[in-house]
Amino acid sequence: MISKTTSSLNSCESGSAPSDILLKDGERIDDLHRNGLRLIQRQSGFRFGTDAVLLAAFAKAGKHDRVMDFCTGSGVIPILMSARTEAASLFGMEINPETADTACRSVSLNCLDNRVQIVCGDIRDVKSHFEASSFQVVTANPPYIKGGGTGKDEAKASARHEILCGIQDIAASAAWLLSFNGSFYLVHRPDRLMEVLSALREARLEPKALRFVHSFIDRPPVMVLIKSVYGGKPHMSVMPPLVIHEPGGSYTTEAKGIYYE
Amino acid sequence: MISKTTSSLNSCESGSAPSDILLKDGERIDDLHRNGLRLIQRQSGFRFGTDAVLLAAFAKAGKHDRVMDFCTGSGVIPILMSARTEAASLFGMEINPETADTACRSVSLNCLDNRVQIVCGDIRDVKSHFEASSFQVVTANPPYIKGGGTGKDEAKASARHEILCGIQDIAASAAWLLSFNGSFYLVHRPDRLMEVLSALREARLEPKALRFVHSFIDRPPVMVLIKSVYGGKPHMSVMPPLVIHEPGGSYTTEAKGIYYE
Repeated sequence: MISKTTSSLNSCESGSAPSDILLKDGERIDDLHRNGLRLIQRQSGFRFGTDAVLLAAFAKAGKHDRVMDFCTGSGVIPILMSARTEAASLFGMEINPETADTACRSVSLNCLDNRVQIVCGDIRDVKSHFEASSFQVVTANPPYIKGGGTGKDEAKASARHEILCGIQDIAASAAWLLSFNGSFYLVHRPDRLMEVLSALREARLEPKALRFVHSFIDRPPVMVLIKSVYGGKPHMSVMPPLVIHEPGGSYTTEAKGIYYE
Repeated sequence: MISKTTSSLNSCESGSAPSDILLKDGERIDDLHRNGLRLIQRQSGFRFGTDAVLLAAFAKAGKHDRVMDFCTGSGVIPILMSARTEAASLFGMEINPETADTACRSVSLNCLDNRVQIVCGDIRDVKSHFEASSFQVVTANPPYIKGGGTGKDEAKASARHEILCGIQDIAASAAWLLSFNGSFYLVHRPDRLMEVLSALREARLEPKALRFVHSFIDRPPVMVLIKSVYGGKPHMSVMPPLVIHEPGGSYTTEAKGIYYE
Protein backbone atom coordinates (compact mmCIF):
# COMPACT_ATOMS: atom_id res chain seq x y z
CA MET A 1 0.00 0.00 0.00
CA ILE A 2 1.40 3.40 -0.93
CA SER A 3 1.64 5.72 2.08
CA LYS A 4 -0.04 9.09 2.00
CA THR A 5 1.27 12.33 3.45
CA THR A 6 -0.35 13.45 6.64
CA SER A 7 -0.69 16.94 5.25
CA SER A 8 -3.09 15.81 2.53
CA LEU A 9 -5.36 14.08 5.01
CA ASN A 10 -5.41 17.15 7.22
CA SER A 11 -6.20 19.42 4.31
CA CYS A 12 -9.16 17.20 3.31
CA GLU A 13 -10.50 17.54 6.81
CA SER A 14 -10.22 21.31 6.51
CA GLY A 15 -12.06 21.26 3.19
CA SER A 16 -9.40 21.65 0.48
CA ALA A 17 -6.37 19.61 -0.55
CA PRO A 18 -3.03 21.37 -1.01
CA SER A 19 -2.36 20.66 -4.67
CA ASP A 20 1.03 22.40 -4.49
CA ILE A 21 2.23 19.87 -1.91
CA LEU A 22 0.79 16.90 -3.84
CA LEU A 23 2.23 17.87 -7.22
CA LYS A 24 5.71 16.77 -8.34
CA ASP A 25 7.93 18.12 -11.09
CA GLY A 26 6.63 17.34 -14.59
CA GLU A 27 3.09 16.71 -13.40
CA ARG A 28 -0.10 18.63 -14.02
CA ILE A 29 -3.65 18.58 -12.68
CA ASP A 30 -6.57 17.88 -15.03
CA ASP A 31 -10.25 18.52 -14.39
CA LEU A 32 -12.43 15.38 -14.62
CA HIS A 33 -15.60 17.43 -15.24
CA ARG A 34 -17.54 15.53 -12.60
CA ASN A 35 -18.26 16.60 -9.03
CA GLY A 36 -15.16 18.83 -9.10
CA LEU A 37 -12.86 15.80 -9.32
CA ARG A 38 -9.29 16.35 -10.48
CA LEU A 39 -6.47 14.06 -11.55
CA ILE A 40 -2.69 14.34 -11.31
CA GLN A 41 -0.94 13.15 -14.48
CA ARG A 42 2.58 13.27 -15.87
CA GLN A 43 2.77 15.89 -18.58
CA SER A 44 4.76 13.66 -20.93
CA GLY A 45 3.50 10.20 -19.94
CA PHE A 46 0.48 8.03 -20.76
CA ARG A 47 -2.65 10.00 -19.92
CA PHE A 48 -6.14 8.67 -19.36
CA GLY A 49 -8.39 8.65 -22.41
CA THR A 50 -11.97 8.28 -23.53
CA ASP A 51 -11.82 4.52 -22.87
CA ALA A 52 -11.34 5.04 -19.12
CA VAL A 53 -14.16 7.58 -18.93
CA LEU A 54 -16.53 5.28 -20.84
CA LEU A 55 -15.61 2.26 -18.72
CA ALA A 56 -16.24 4.22 -15.51
CA ALA A 57 -19.69 5.11 -16.87
CA PHE A 58 -20.41 1.54 -18.11
CA ALA A 59 -19.49 -0.20 -14.83
CA LYS A 60 -22.10 -0.48 -12.11
CA ALA A 61 -21.57 -1.00 -8.38
CA GLY A 62 -23.88 -1.05 -5.36
CA LYS A 63 -23.45 0.57 -1.96
CA HIS A 64 -22.01 -2.54 -0.31
CA ASP A 65 -19.80 -3.65 -3.20
CA ARG A 66 -16.03 -3.81 -3.02
CA VAL A 67 -14.68 -2.64 -6.38
CA MET A 68 -11.22 -3.38 -7.81
CA ASP A 69 -9.70 -1.64 -10.84
CA PHE A 70 -6.82 -3.52 -12.48
CA CYS A 71 -3.98 -1.64 -14.22
CA THR A 72 -5.41 1.52 -12.68
CA GLY A 73 -2.68 3.89 -13.94
CA SER A 74 -3.58 7.41 -12.78
CA GLY A 75 -6.48 5.96 -10.75
CA VAL A 76 -8.99 7.69 -13.02
CA ILE A 77 -11.48 4.80 -12.96
CA PRO A 78 -11.89 4.37 -9.17
CA ILE A 79 -11.85 8.17 -8.76
CA LEU A 80 -14.63 8.62 -11.34
CA MET A 81 -16.56 5.63 -9.94
CA SER A 82 -16.47 7.25 -6.50
CA ALA A 83 -18.73 9.92 -8.00
CA ARG A 84 -20.78 7.62 -10.25
CA THR A 85 -21.57 4.89 -7.71
CA GLU A 86 -22.28 4.58 -4.02
CA ALA A 87 -19.59 1.91 -3.55
CA ALA A 88 -18.02 2.47 -0.14
CA SER A 89 -14.79 0.74 -1.01
CA LEU A 90 -12.84 1.18 -4.27
CA PHE A 91 -9.35 -0.16 -4.99
CA GLY A 92 -6.93 0.45 -7.83
CA MET A 93 -3.97 -1.84 -8.51
CA GLU A 94 -0.95 -0.52 -10.39
CA ILE A 95 2.37 -2.25 -11.00
CA ASN A 96 4.53 0.83 -11.65
CA PRO A 97 5.50 2.40 -8.27
CA GLU A 98 5.80 5.94 -9.63
CA THR A 99 2.41 5.75 -11.35
CA ALA A 100 0.85 4.23 -8.22
CA ASP A 101 2.31 7.07 -6.16
CA THR A 102 0.78 9.64 -8.51
CA ALA A 103 -2.61 7.86 -8.33
CA CYS A 104 -2.36 7.86 -4.57
CA ARG A 105 -1.79 11.60 -4.49
CA SER A 106 -4.81 12.11 -6.78
CA VAL A 107 -6.91 10.19 -4.27
CA SER A 108 -5.74 12.58 -1.56
CA LEU A 109 -6.22 15.61 -3.80
CA ASN A 110 -9.89 14.63 -4.07
CA CYS A 111 -10.20 13.85 -0.36
CA LEU A 112 -11.13 10.26 -1.19
CA ASP A 113 -8.71 8.52 1.19
CA ASN A 114 -11.60 6.97 3.08
CA ARG A 115 -13.11 5.38 -0.03
CA VAL A 116 -10.33 4.78 -2.57
CA GLN A 117 -7.12 2.83 -1.97
CA ILE A 118 -4.26 2.45 -4.44
CA VAL A 119 -2.26 -0.77 -4.19
CA CYS A 120 1.13 -1.06 -5.84
CA GLY A 121 1.41 -4.61 -7.13
CA ASP A 122 1.28 -7.05 -10.01
CA ILE A 123 -2.26 -8.15 -10.86
CA ARG A 124 -0.88 -11.63 -11.66
CA ASP A 125 0.03 -11.79 -7.99
CA VAL A 126 -3.34 -10.63 -6.69
CA LYS A 127 -3.55 -13.65 -4.35
CA SER A 128 -0.81 -12.26 -2.16
CA HIS A 129 -2.72 -9.00 -1.66
CA PHE A 130 -6.37 -10.04 -1.33
CA GLU A 131 -8.54 -12.98 -0.33
CA ALA A 132 -10.36 -15.05 -2.96
CA SER A 133 -13.97 -14.05 -3.76
CA SER A 134 -13.57 -10.84 -1.76
CA PHE A 135 -14.83 -8.40 -4.45
CA GLN A 136 -18.21 -7.94 -6.16
CA VAL A 137 -16.95 -5.80 -9.04
CA VAL A 138 -13.70 -5.72 -11.01
CA THR A 139 -12.93 -3.24 -13.79
CA ALA A 140 -10.02 -3.17 -16.25
CA ASN A 141 -8.80 -0.88 -19.01
CA PRO A 142 -5.85 -3.10 -19.87
CA PRO A 143 -3.12 -2.75 -22.49
CA TYR A 144 -4.77 -3.49 -25.85
CA ILE A 145 -1.87 -4.36 -28.06
CA LYS A 146 -0.55 -7.89 -28.35
CA GLY A 147 3.16 -8.36 -27.78
CA GLY A 148 5.80 -6.03 -26.41
CA GLY A 149 6.22 -2.39 -27.29
CA THR A 150 9.44 -0.43 -27.42
CA GLY A 151 10.30 3.05 -26.30
CA LYS A 152 12.02 4.92 -23.54
CA ASP A 153 8.93 5.37 -21.38
CA GLU A 154 8.38 2.05 -19.65
CA ALA A 155 5.12 3.06 -17.94
CA LYS A 156 3.68 4.37 -21.21
CA ALA A 157 4.70 1.22 -23.13
CA SER A 158 3.26 -1.17 -20.54
CA ALA A 159 -0.03 0.76 -20.48
CA ARG A 160 -0.44 0.11 -24.22
CA HIS A 161 1.25 -3.24 -24.82
CA GLU A 162 0.71 -6.61 -23.17
CA ILE A 163 4.23 -6.57 -21.73
CA LEU A 164 3.42 -7.17 -18.09
CA CYS A 165 0.08 -8.93 -18.39
CA GLY A 166 -2.10 -10.39 -21.13
CA ILE A 167 -5.86 -10.81 -21.27
CA GLN A 168 -5.59 -14.37 -19.89
CA ASP A 169 -3.75 -13.08 -16.78
CA ILE A 170 -6.34 -10.36 -16.28
CA ALA A 171 -9.28 -12.76 -16.66
CA ALA A 172 -7.74 -15.32 -14.29
CA SER A 173 -7.05 -12.70 -11.59
CA ALA A 174 -10.51 -11.13 -11.96
CA ALA A 175 -12.13 -14.56 -11.64
CA TRP A 176 -10.08 -15.27 -8.52
CA LEU A 177 -11.06 -11.99 -6.85
CA LEU A 178 -14.77 -12.05 -7.72
CA SER A 179 -17.50 -13.61 -5.62
CA PHE A 180 -20.02 -15.84 -7.41
CA ASN A 181 -22.18 -13.69 -9.72
CA GLY A 182 -19.73 -10.80 -9.38
CA SER A 183 -19.25 -8.55 -12.41
CA PHE A 184 -16.15 -7.87 -14.47
CA TYR A 185 -16.26 -4.74 -16.67
CA LEU A 186 -13.65 -4.45 -19.39
CA VAL A 187 -12.87 -2.11 -22.27
CA HIS A 188 -10.90 -3.47 -25.22
CA ARG A 189 -10.34 -3.23 -28.93
CA PRO A 190 -12.93 -4.76 -31.27
CA ASP A 191 -10.23 -6.42 -33.39
CA ARG A 192 -9.26 -8.58 -30.40
CA LEU A 193 -12.86 -9.41 -29.48
CA MET A 194 -12.61 -13.16 -30.14
CA GLU A 195 -9.47 -13.60 -28.05
CA VAL A 196 -10.93 -11.51 -25.24
CA LEU A 197 -14.28 -13.35 -25.19
CA SER A 198 -12.52 -16.73 -25.28
CA ALA A 199 -10.20 -15.77 -22.41
CA LEU A 200 -13.16 -14.58 -20.34
CA ARG A 201 -15.11 -17.76 -20.92
CA GLU A 202 -12.12 -19.93 -20.08
CA ALA A 203 -11.90 -18.14 -16.73
CA ARG A 204 -15.63 -18.79 -16.07
CA LEU A 205 -16.34 -15.09 -16.65
CA GLU A 206 -19.33 -15.51 -18.96
CA PRO A 207 -19.67 -12.51 -21.31
CA LYS A 208 -23.17 -11.14 -20.72
CA ALA A 209 -23.24 -7.67 -22.30
CA LEU A 210 -21.43 -5.91 -25.13
CA ARG A 211 -21.52 -2.28 -26.13
CA PHE A 212 -19.61 -1.08 -29.17
CA VAL A 213 -18.31 2.48 -29.19
CA HIS A 214 -18.29 4.27 -32.55
CA SER A 215 -16.69 7.67 -33.23
CA PHE A 216 -19.34 8.08 -35.94
CA ILE A 217 -22.34 5.82 -36.52
CA ASP A 218 -21.34 4.86 -40.06
CA ARG A 219 -17.82 3.78 -39.09
CA PRO A 220 -16.56 0.59 -37.43
CA PRO A 221 -16.37 0.70 -33.63
CA VAL A 222 -13.15 1.92 -31.99
CA MET A 223 -13.75 0.22 -28.67
CA VAL A 224 -15.93 -2.42 -27.05
CA LEU A 225 -17.24 -2.41 -23.49
CA ILE A 226 -17.78 -5.90 -22.10
CA LYS A 227 -19.60 -7.05 -18.97
CA SER A 228 -18.92 -10.59 -17.78
CA VAL A 229 -20.40 -12.40 -14.81
CA TYR A 230 -18.42 -14.92 -12.78
CA GLY A 231 -20.28 -18.22 -13.04
CA GLY A 232 -22.99 -16.66 -15.25
CA LYS A 233 -25.11 -18.64 -17.71
CA PRO A 234 -24.82 -17.95 -21.44
CA HIS A 235 -27.09 -15.11 -22.56
CA MET A 236 -25.70 -12.08 -24.34
CA SER A 237 -27.24 -8.60 -24.40
CA VAL A 238 -25.78 -6.56 -27.21
CA MET A 239 -26.66 -2.96 -26.43
CA PRO A 240 -27.41 -0.15 -28.89
CA PRO A 241 -24.20 1.39 -30.24
CA LEU A 242 -22.60 4.18 -28.21
CA VAL A 243 -21.87 6.97 -30.68
CA ILE A 244 -19.47 9.77 -29.70
CA HIS A 245 -19.92 12.31 -32.50
CA GLU A 246 -22.82 13.60 -34.58
CA PRO A 247 -22.16 13.57 -38.36
CA GLY A 248 -21.09 17.24 -38.09
CA GLY A 249 -18.46 16.46 -35.45
CA SER A 250 -20.10 17.76 -32.26
CA TYR A 251 -20.63 15.40 -29.32
CA THR A 252 -23.83 13.36 -29.23
CA THR A 253 -26.16 13.97 -26.30
CA GLU A 254 -25.13 10.65 -24.76
CA ALA A 255 -21.38 11.38 -25.07
CA LYS A 256 -21.87 14.84 -23.54
CA GLY A 257 -23.74 13.24 -20.65
CA ILE A 258 -20.87 10.82 -20.01
CA TYR A 259 -18.12 13.42 -20.26
CA TYR A 260 -19.62 16.44 -18.59
CA GLU A 261 -22.67 15.66 -16.46
CA MET B 1 -31.12 -34.92 -55.28
CA ILE B 2 -34.78 -33.99 -55.88
CA SER B 3 -35.82 -34.65 -59.46
CA LYS B 4 -37.22 -31.81 -61.53
CA THR B 5 -40.06 -31.99 -64.03
CA THR B 6 -39.03 -31.98 -67.67
CA SER B 7 -41.72 -29.42 -68.40
CA SER B 8 -40.06 -26.81 -66.21
CA LEU B 9 -36.69 -27.32 -67.88
CA ASN B 10 -38.27 -27.05 -71.31
CA SER B 11 -40.11 -23.89 -70.35
CA CYS B 12 -36.86 -22.27 -69.20
CA GLU B 13 -35.38 -22.98 -72.59
CA SER B 14 -38.34 -21.26 -74.22
CA GLY B 15 -37.90 -18.24 -71.96
CA SER B 16 -40.55 -18.54 -69.26
CA ALA B 17 -41.33 -21.12 -66.61
CA PRO B 18 -44.89 -22.44 -66.28
CA SER B 19 -45.72 -21.35 -62.75
CA ASP B 20 -49.12 -23.09 -62.89
CA ILE B 21 -47.43 -26.46 -63.41
CA LEU B 22 -44.84 -25.80 -60.67
CA LEU B 23 -47.34 -24.65 -58.04
CA LYS B 24 -49.07 -27.09 -55.65
CA ASP B 25 -52.17 -26.63 -53.54
CA GLY B 26 -51.65 -24.23 -50.62
CA GLU B 27 -48.61 -22.59 -52.19
CA ARG B 28 -48.08 -19.09 -53.49
CA ILE B 29 -45.42 -17.26 -55.48
CA ASP B 30 -43.61 -14.28 -53.95
CA ASP B 31 -41.55 -11.65 -55.75
CA LEU B 32 -37.94 -11.43 -54.51
CA HIS B 33 -37.53 -7.87 -55.89
CA ARG B 34 -34.24 -8.74 -57.55
CA ASN B 35 -33.64 -9.60 -61.21
CA GLY B 36 -37.27 -10.75 -61.50
CA LEU B 37 -36.61 -13.70 -59.15
CA ARG B 38 -39.59 -15.41 -57.57
CA LEU B 39 -40.05 -17.92 -54.80
CA ILE B 40 -42.63 -20.64 -54.15
CA GLN B 41 -43.73 -20.80 -50.53
CA ARG B 42 -46.44 -22.53 -48.54
CA GLN B 43 -49.15 -20.06 -47.63
CA SER B 44 -49.41 -21.29 -44.03
CA GLY B 45 -45.86 -22.50 -43.40
CA PHE B 46 -42.57 -20.90 -42.38
CA ARG B 47 -41.74 -18.16 -44.88
CA PHE B 48 -38.39 -16.56 -45.56
CA GLY B 49 -37.67 -13.39 -43.65
CA THR B 50 -35.38 -10.39 -43.46
CA ASP B 51 -32.61 -12.56 -42.00
CA ALA B 52 -32.34 -14.63 -45.20
CA VAL B 53 -32.29 -11.53 -47.41
CA LEU B 54 -29.59 -9.89 -45.26
CA LEU B 55 -27.48 -13.05 -45.18
CA ALA B 56 -27.66 -13.37 -48.97
CA ALA B 57 -26.40 -9.77 -49.22
CA PHE B 58 -23.69 -10.24 -46.55
CA ALA B 59 -22.20 -13.43 -48.06
CA LYS B 60 -19.61 -13.08 -50.80
CA ALA B 61 -18.64 -15.65 -53.44
CA GLY B 62 -16.32 -15.60 -56.45
CA LYS B 63 -16.90 -16.93 -59.95
CA HIS B 64 -15.18 -20.26 -59.32
CA ASP B 65 -16.56 -20.85 -55.82
CA ARG B 66 -18.83 -23.72 -54.92
CA VAL B 67 -21.41 -22.41 -52.45
CA MET B 68 -23.47 -24.48 -50.01
CA ASP B 69 -26.48 -23.21 -48.04
CA PHE B 70 -27.41 -25.28 -44.99
CA CYS B 71 -31.04 -25.56 -43.82
CA THR B 72 -32.00 -23.87 -47.07
CA GLY B 73 -35.78 -24.09 -46.59
CA SER B 74 -37.44 -22.42 -49.59
CA GLY B 75 -34.02 -22.06 -51.25
CA VAL B 76 -34.20 -18.28 -50.95
CA ILE B 77 -30.50 -17.85 -50.12
CA PRO B 78 -28.96 -19.73 -53.09
CA ILE B 79 -31.61 -18.23 -55.39
CA LEU B 80 -30.80 -14.67 -54.23
CA MET B 81 -27.05 -15.40 -54.32
CA SER B 82 -27.39 -16.52 -57.93
CA ALA B 83 -28.22 -12.87 -58.70
CA ARG B 84 -25.84 -11.28 -56.20
CA THR B 85 -22.72 -13.29 -57.03
CA GLU B 86 -21.08 -14.85 -60.06
CA ALA B 87 -20.79 -18.26 -58.37
CA ALA B 88 -21.36 -20.90 -61.01
CA SER B 89 -22.39 -23.56 -58.57
CA LEU B 90 -24.80 -23.06 -55.67
CA PHE B 91 -26.28 -25.81 -53.50
CA GLY B 92 -29.01 -25.79 -50.87
CA MET B 93 -29.46 -28.62 -48.38
CA GLU B 94 -32.84 -29.21 -46.74
CA ILE B 95 -33.89 -32.08 -44.49
CA ASN B 96 -37.66 -31.86 -45.01
CA PRO B 97 -38.57 -33.61 -48.32
CA GLU B 98 -41.64 -31.48 -48.99
CA THR B 99 -39.76 -28.24 -48.36
CA ALA B 100 -36.86 -29.46 -50.51
CA ASP B 101 -39.32 -30.26 -53.30
CA THR B 102 -40.77 -26.74 -53.11
CA ALA B 103 -37.26 -25.22 -53.21
CA CYS B 104 -36.46 -27.38 -56.20
CA ARG B 105 -39.51 -26.10 -58.08
CA SER B 106 -38.50 -22.49 -57.24
CA VAL B 107 -35.13 -23.19 -58.83
CA SER B 108 -36.92 -24.33 -61.99
CA LEU B 109 -39.36 -21.43 -61.83
CA ASN B 110 -36.35 -19.09 -62.06
CA CYS B 111 -34.65 -21.17 -64.76
CA LEU B 112 -31.67 -21.73 -62.48
CA ASP B 113 -31.38 -25.51 -62.88
CA ASN B 114 -27.92 -25.13 -64.35
CA ARG B 115 -26.59 -23.14 -61.37
CA VAL B 116 -28.60 -24.11 -58.28
CA GLN B 117 -29.10 -27.61 -56.92
CA ILE B 118 -31.31 -28.56 -53.98
CA VAL B 119 -30.23 -31.61 -52.00
CA CYS B 120 -32.64 -33.32 -49.65
CA GLY B 121 -30.61 -34.50 -46.67
CA ASP B 122 -29.49 -34.01 -43.09
CA ILE B 123 -26.62 -31.53 -42.72
CA ARG B 124 -25.23 -33.71 -39.92
CA ASP B 125 -24.78 -36.35 -42.58
CA VAL B 126 -23.09 -34.07 -45.13
CA LYS B 127 -20.19 -36.53 -45.52
CA SER B 128 -22.40 -39.00 -47.31
CA HIS B 129 -23.38 -36.38 -49.91
CA PHE B 130 -20.17 -34.42 -50.57
CA GLU B 131 -16.41 -34.72 -50.42
CA ALA B 132 -14.40 -33.02 -47.68
CA SER B 133 -13.00 -29.55 -48.48
CA SER B 134 -15.06 -29.37 -51.65
CA PHE B 135 -16.69 -25.94 -51.05
CA GLN B 136 -15.26 -22.43 -50.77
CA VAL B 137 -18.34 -20.83 -49.21
CA VAL B 138 -21.00 -22.13 -46.82
CA THR B 139 -24.00 -20.09 -45.64
CA ALA B 140 -26.56 -20.85 -42.93
CA ASN B 141 -29.69 -19.24 -41.57
CA PRO B 142 -30.23 -21.93 -38.95
CA PRO B 143 -32.91 -22.37 -36.29
CA TYR B 144 -32.19 -19.77 -33.58
CA ILE B 145 -34.01 -21.10 -30.57
CA LYS B 146 -32.39 -23.53 -28.16
CA GLY B 147 -34.31 -26.70 -27.41
CA GLY B 148 -37.33 -28.28 -29.05
CA GLY B 149 -40.44 -26.43 -30.13
CA THR B 150 -43.97 -27.77 -30.18
CA GLY B 151 -46.75 -27.37 -32.66
CA LYS B 152 -48.47 -29.18 -35.47
CA ASP B 153 -46.28 -27.87 -38.26
CA GLU B 154 -43.07 -29.93 -38.09
CA ALA B 155 -41.26 -28.00 -40.85
CA LYS B 156 -42.10 -24.64 -39.23
CA ALA B 157 -40.99 -25.82 -35.77
CA SER B 158 -37.68 -27.24 -37.01
CA ALA B 159 -36.94 -24.02 -38.92
CA ARG B 160 -37.15 -22.08 -35.66
CA HIS B 161 -35.98 -24.52 -32.98
CA GLU B 162 -32.80 -26.54 -32.72
CA ILE B 163 -34.72 -29.81 -33.03
CA LEU B 164 -32.84 -31.39 -35.89
CA CYS B 165 -29.49 -29.64 -35.59
CA GLY B 166 -27.73 -27.32 -33.17
CA ILE B 167 -25.04 -24.75 -33.81
CA GLN B 168 -22.30 -27.30 -33.02
CA ASP B 169 -23.62 -29.65 -35.74
CA ILE B 170 -23.78 -26.80 -38.22
CA ALA B 171 -20.25 -25.59 -37.42
CA ALA B 172 -18.81 -29.10 -37.63
CA SER B 173 -20.44 -29.80 -41.00
CA ALA B 174 -19.43 -26.40 -42.42
CA ALA B 175 -15.82 -26.98 -41.31
CA TRP B 176 -15.85 -30.40 -42.95
CA LEU B 177 -17.15 -29.06 -46.26
CA LEU B 178 -14.92 -25.98 -46.48
CA SER B 179 -11.52 -25.83 -48.07
CA PHE B 180 -8.73 -24.12 -46.11
CA ASN B 181 -9.47 -20.37 -45.90
CA GLY B 182 -13.03 -20.97 -47.07
CA SER B 183 -15.74 -18.70 -45.63
CA PHE B 184 -18.75 -19.53 -43.51
CA TYR B 185 -21.49 -16.88 -43.38
CA LEU B 186 -24.09 -17.20 -40.65
CA VAL B 187 -27.01 -15.17 -39.33
CA HIS B 188 -28.07 -15.69 -35.72
CA ARG B 189 -29.56 -14.03 -32.66
CA PRO B 190 -27.38 -11.65 -30.62
CA ASP B 191 -28.47 -13.24 -27.34
CA ARG B 192 -26.80 -16.49 -28.41
CA LEU B 193 -23.62 -14.78 -29.65
CA MET B 194 -21.25 -16.33 -27.11
CA GLU B 195 -22.44 -19.89 -27.75
CA VAL B 196 -22.27 -19.34 -31.52
CA LEU B 197 -18.77 -17.82 -31.45
CA SER B 198 -17.50 -20.58 -29.17
CA ALA B 199 -18.95 -23.30 -31.41
CA LEU B 200 -17.37 -21.71 -34.49
CA ARG B 201 -13.97 -21.46 -32.86
CA GLU B 202 -14.14 -25.07 -31.63
CA ALA B 203 -14.71 -26.14 -35.24
CA ARG B 204 -11.66 -24.09 -36.40
CA LEU B 205 -14.01 -21.59 -38.04
CA GLU B 206 -12.35 -18.43 -36.71
CA PRO B 207 -14.90 -15.57 -36.43
CA LYS B 208 -13.48 -12.72 -38.53
CA ALA B 209 -16.32 -10.25 -39.08
CA LEU B 210 -19.49 -9.28 -37.22
CA ARG B 211 -22.28 -7.02 -38.32
CA PHE B 212 -25.14 -6.25 -35.98
CA VAL B 213 -28.56 -5.53 -37.49
CA HIS B 214 -30.73 -2.97 -35.68
CA SER B 215 -34.38 -2.20 -36.49
CA PHE B 216 -33.64 1.29 -35.18
CA ILE B 217 -30.24 2.72 -34.30
CA ASP B 218 -31.11 3.40 -30.66
CA ARG B 219 -32.36 -0.13 -29.99
CA PRO B 220 -30.45 -3.37 -29.34
CA PRO B 221 -29.67 -5.43 -32.45
CA VAL B 222 -32.22 -8.02 -33.58
CA MET B 223 -29.75 -10.12 -35.57
CA VAL B 224 -26.04 -10.62 -36.06
CA LEU B 225 -24.29 -11.53 -39.30
CA ILE B 226 -21.06 -13.48 -38.75
CA LYS B 227 -18.28 -14.34 -41.17
CA SER B 228 -15.85 -17.08 -40.10
CA VAL B 229 -12.85 -18.39 -41.97
CA TYR B 230 -11.80 -22.04 -41.80
CA GLY B 231 -8.28 -22.10 -40.35
CA GLY B 232 -8.22 -18.27 -40.07
CA LYS B 233 -6.07 -16.37 -37.57
CA PRO B 234 -7.70 -14.29 -34.81
CA HIS B 235 -8.56 -10.78 -35.96
CA MET B 236 -12.09 -9.44 -35.75
CA SER B 237 -13.62 -6.72 -37.91
CA VAL B 238 -16.73 -5.35 -36.31
CA MET B 239 -18.56 -3.48 -39.04
CA PRO B 240 -20.72 -0.36 -38.71
CA PRO B 241 -24.25 -1.26 -37.58
CA LEU B 242 -26.76 -2.18 -40.28
CA VAL B 243 -29.86 -0.14 -39.53
CA ILE B 244 -33.17 -1.08 -41.15
CA HIS B 245 -35.43 1.88 -40.32
CA GLU B 246 -35.02 5.64 -40.05
CA PRO B 247 -36.40 7.12 -36.79
CA GLY B 248 -39.67 7.90 -38.65
CA GLY B 249 -40.11 4.26 -39.69
CA SER B 250 -39.18 4.36 -43.40
CA TYR B 251 -36.37 2.13 -44.69
CA THR B 252 -32.82 3.46 -44.53
CA THR B 253 -31.00 3.88 -47.83
CA GLU B 254 -28.90 0.80 -47.09
CA ALA B 255 -31.92 -1.39 -46.26
CA LYS B 256 -33.71 -0.24 -49.42
CA GLY B 257 -30.61 -1.15 -51.43
CA ILE B 258 -30.56 -4.65 -49.95
CA TYR B 259 -34.28 -5.30 -50.38
CA TYR B 260 -35.07 -3.71 -53.71
CA GLU B 261 -32.01 -2.93 -55.80
